[in-house]
Amino acid sequence: MKKIAVLLSGCGVYDGTEIQEAVSVLIALDELGAAAVCVAPDMPQHHVVDHLTGDDMGHARNVRVESARIARGAVLDLAEVKVAELDGLVIPGGFGAAKNLSNWAFAGPDCTVQPGVAALIQDMVAAGKPVAALCVAPVLLAKALSGMGITLTLGTPEGASPYDIEGFHAGVASLGAKPVACELGEIAVDAAHKVVTTPCYMMDAGPAAILAGVRKACAQLLAWTA
Amino acid sequence: MKKIAVLLSGCGVYDGTEIQEAVSVLIALDELGAAAVCVAPDMPQHHVVDHLTGDDMGHARNVRVESARIARGAVLDLAEVKVAELDGLVIPGGFGAAKNLSNWAFAGPDCTVQPGVAALIQDMVAAGKPVAALCVAPVLLAKALSGMGITLTLGTPEGASPYDIEGFHAGVASLGAKPVACELGEIAVDAAHKVVTTPCYMMDAGPAAILAGVRKACAQLLAWTA
Repeated sequence: MKKIAVLLSGCGVYDGTEIQEAVSVLIALDELGAAAVCVAPDMPQHHVVDHLTGDDMGHARNVRVESARIARGAVLDLAEVKVAELDGLVIPGGFGAAKNLSNWAFAGPDCTVQPGVAALIQDMVAAGKPVAALCVAPVLLAKALSGMGITLTLGTPEGASPYDIEGFHAGVASLGAKPVACELGEIAVDAAHKVVTTPCYMMDAGPAAILAGVRKACAQLLAWTA
Repeated sequence: MKKIAVLLSGCGVYDGTEIQEAVSVLIALDELGAAAVCVAPDMPQHHVVDHLTGDDMGHARNVRVESARIARGAVLDLAEVKVAELDGLVIPGGFGAAKNLSNWAFAGPDCTVQPGVAALIQDMVAAGKPVAALCVAPVLLAKALSGMGITLTLGTPEGASPYDIEGFHAGVASLGAKPVACELGEIAVDAAHKVVTTPCYMMDAGPAAILAGVRKACAQLLAWTA
């Protein structure tokens, strides 16, 4: 059974992992016969957002502890993860990728990716193991694999989206990545680096379309592990 | 488009809604062409559990605010919900059903169901509108519809489960419900009352099996709205 790390960044779209994307990954990997290994850094969240109002709640939560809500308990500390024991990596989206795993939300392409996160991404790719990144998470690949010319997508400027897809694509291009436009449900495939990305909630979407896109990305990821 | 209320009880299996079950409901309703209307009571959680360690974290969180993490923001206050505007109701599981929506976790069949929750369940059934309850949530139906002889399931004592299914079935039977044994993925159908239940994480399970069972329950629910 293939062991696929699922890198979480908290629990909730505005300050952590996008929950529906993360659960879709767990469903898709299970349907495809792979074992999900949830991992998260043991660190404070950047902040805690009231998901009803958007307000900063002004207290502290821990990324790994909150991620455990999605995983029903078992979340490895990122510091303990060994690339040699993994067959692949999936990074769901949510602002946690851009606020906790990196500070892209505040610094854009000048951001810093958390050292443990950058090392995991770099070591997986160096070992020829596949990586999938969903929604906004491809910015982590663009930064951690800066200059490697990774083909990836944040969505399409042609479709309905609450975000500035063109701006995201310009940002990752400034780091040497090659952004391509993908509609909801389409995947961008970089076969040379075994990297697959898909827009998910970067575009206007609903839960069924999220699962469909995630399934496609996970199927491509697992095809590379065969 | 049918409007189906999804009654949430927080965000996380040990102190709120079971996240994977709730997301599976959102996916299944979307796949089936129905609109999910997430609702939750605006009240403090019974407690907040560290999902890594099981410890009480000793601070307060609000059921509706945390539920909004699953829903990506929009969660109606249960006090504002109008049965006349709904076509059906789904209640996912998680300890939130037994700690926040009721106190079954502490009092069993002697529990109190939150008045707004009991009224919603009673009014839906009285109006001939269908109700689905997943995992441990059928205990809410047993109590709120006490003496009505509702057929329901909490799972099967014959299968692998972390819980005392026989004890749960004895508890709901003491309230006049008619418990039936269901394996993971099977549904218990009470056609007279338009109530459907399925065990989900009351049994040992993984995310793909959860979605499959939830899909079956939601399909039955929607068939009753046709």
